[in-house]
Amino acid sequence: MATLSDIAEKLGITKGTVSKALNDAPDISETMRKTILETAVEMGYTLKRQKKNEFKKLCIFIENMDYNVPNDFGYEIVLGFKKAAEPAGYQVDLVALTPEFQKTHPYDIYMLQNGYMGAYVMGLALADPWMAQFSHTRYPTVLYDNYVKDNLCTAYVGLDNYEGLDLLISHLKGLGHQKIGLLSGALGSHITQARYKAFHNAMRKNHLKIDSDLVRCSYYITECTSQHLPHLLNHGATAIVCSHDMLANAVLTACRDFGYRIPEDLSIVGFDDLPLSAYTFPPLTTIRQDREALGKCGYFALNSLLEKVPVGTLLLHAQLILRSSTGKAPSQPVQPASPLPML
Amino acid sequence: MATLSDIAEKLGITKGTVSKALNDAPDISETMRKTILETAVEMGYTLKRQKKNEFKKLCIFIENMDYNVPNDFGYEIVLGFKKAAEPAGYQVDLVALTPEFQKTHPYDIYMLQNGYMGAYVMGLALADPWMAQFSHTRYPTVLYDNYVKDNLCTAYVGLDNYEGLDLLISHLKGLGHQKIGLLSGALGSHITQARYKAFHNAMRKNHLKIDSDLVRCSYYITECTSQHLPHLLNHGATAIVCSHDMLANAVLTACRDFGYRIPEDLSIVGFDDLPLSAYTFPPLTTIRQDREALGKCGYFALNSLLEKVPVGTLLLHAQLILRSSTGKAPSQPVQPASPLPML
Repeated sequence: MATLSDIAEKLGITKGTVSKALNDAPDISETMRKTILETAVEMGYTLKRQKKNEFKKLCIFIENMDYNVPNDFGYEIVLGFKKAAEPAGYQVDLVALTPEFQKTHPYDIYMLQNGYMGAYVMGLALADPWMAQFSHTRYPTVLYDNYVKDNLCTAYVGLDNYEGLDLLISHLKGLGHQKIGLLSGALGSHITQARYKAFHNAMRKNHLKIDSDLVRCSYYITECTSQHLPHLLNHGATAIVCSHDMLANAVLTACRDFGYRIPEDLSIVGFDDLPLSAYTFPPLTTIRQDREALGKCGYFALNSLLEKVPVGTLLLHAQLILRSSTGKAPSQPVQPASPLPML
Repeated sequence: MATLSDIAEKLGITKGTVSKALNDAPDISETMRKTILETAVEMGYTLKRQKKNEFKKLCIFIENMDYNVPNDFGYEIVLGFKKAAEPAGYQVDLVALTPEFQKTHPYDIYMLQNGYMGAYVMGLALADPWMAQFSHTRYPTVLYDNYVKDNLCTAYVGLDNYEGLDLLISHLKGLGHQKIGLLSGALGSHITQARYKAFHNAMRKNHLKIDSDLVRCSYYITECTSQHLPHLLNHGATAIVCSHDMLANAVLTACRDFGYRIPEDLSIVGFDDLPLSAYTFPPLTTIRQDREALGKCGYFALNSLLEKVPVGTLLLHAQLILRSSTGKAPSQPVQPASPLPML
């Protein structure tokens, strides 16, 4: 394992200068500090206090996800991770991320400076600056719902979206639905892309025709409800899969506005089983992500990477939660009481 | 948790009779024994000695796979599983399976009678009798290279075949190969089906044309080398992916017989990185399955299921092992010194 002297020798500088950079001392130029830190990362240097095993630290990085109170999506994931990691002797820190923070703090250097042995990273979009850095990181890094190709130091943890969509589509087909639509969030994240592909895969597997007029995506929920939803209904959808529960909740409300009875006229399903989904009107049929289990699996995968077991993908089983937003398909698409917006 | 009395009451028989069935006493009819054991499984009964935690037992079931000496494929998988399970306080038994054994011993009843808390199952074909039973088992069961849909008690552990084939095809494409063929084992197992699909997926991803004359499957290696290999060569393949190393090894030998120089005339790749693959002539470019890690992951997944964390799929990263059986594509397909068999 590299020492201060190794780094100093490689750069032709004194050990004191190396130490200043590693300890964030003010009297050293930014360029020199950057060079030293990058060299330290490359050479696999770890902080002395970490080597001594005085404390073993892991970090959860989190973005685009609430986690402060039990009803927040991230709360139980964080809890599950800590429940598994802390009894194994790890201190777990939690750091909220922004794209700006990522721009000014290279990932490996941040890990080195803070003495983290590995990290669980949640909620990043594909365009986030650290995503590109994960392809080359030397730190064991587990990504919730993100996949990095061909780096043995990273693993992907998430729900089995293929199984989830298959459960939903089989359920709807069993109720007699043939014209099944998809309303999806924008395809700018791994997870919406995965569910979009899984929807098409499940339709084919269930021998149902995919009608391109019944598939729409948008970043904005209001665009989905005000424009895409009427489009799907005008094209005869009798069931609609929403790529996440927040969207399904908004769709339920919009359908009522348009004069549809759920589930008599129209079946709606979501994905995630957010705490609110048992209380929508009507309660939502959806796919459960066991969030505490997602946290525990995050730790299992990270611990495997730390033990040099190159886990790449760890997927939880999907579970179909049957509530009241799905019912028998109407014999033909129902015309709503009020006319739909024309688009 | 169900007791002897619960089972007796449900069936309207005495506790003594239930106890006889559970302890395999001879003075009870086979029909009654079967009824009692099935009811015990249904009601979630576990043996007293297991409840007392006197010993915690897991079982590795193994079929179609050698595991007795270090060069056997299964050896390090078993070792990895034990390395992870035994320090956690488990006794690990190893039971060799046959289809006949499976026919006469229903899985859940075998698990109950032997006091196993869970199992790691290796090497089963899709037609094996227990495969259908895994859809309904109540025992935490991890399958190496087999997937059971929609049962929260089962998990699938294996290598990421999509990543593996993608690494192989990208490597061959980088060497200038366009006409890439596939020789595959018969499609009667999950793993050959998965690699077959992954080959097609990787070809599409790398924008290479799939020629149906360059894809052949057979249960028999000799059929592959004597019939399918000449067929691929007659159709201009300059590189051949073999779905497993044993097949690649035989293909290397056959190619030499036909007068081809490897890799100058033809590139050959395998899959698995068997111990022999470093010693073939020439040494084989292949995808490593880290077998000890597959064993450890089997335990991680099983332990998760035992802790009610519904792991469904756990895939290890694939690693490309570059040796000497691959090289730059010839400018056009090479005619061999001796004429190929005509078919």
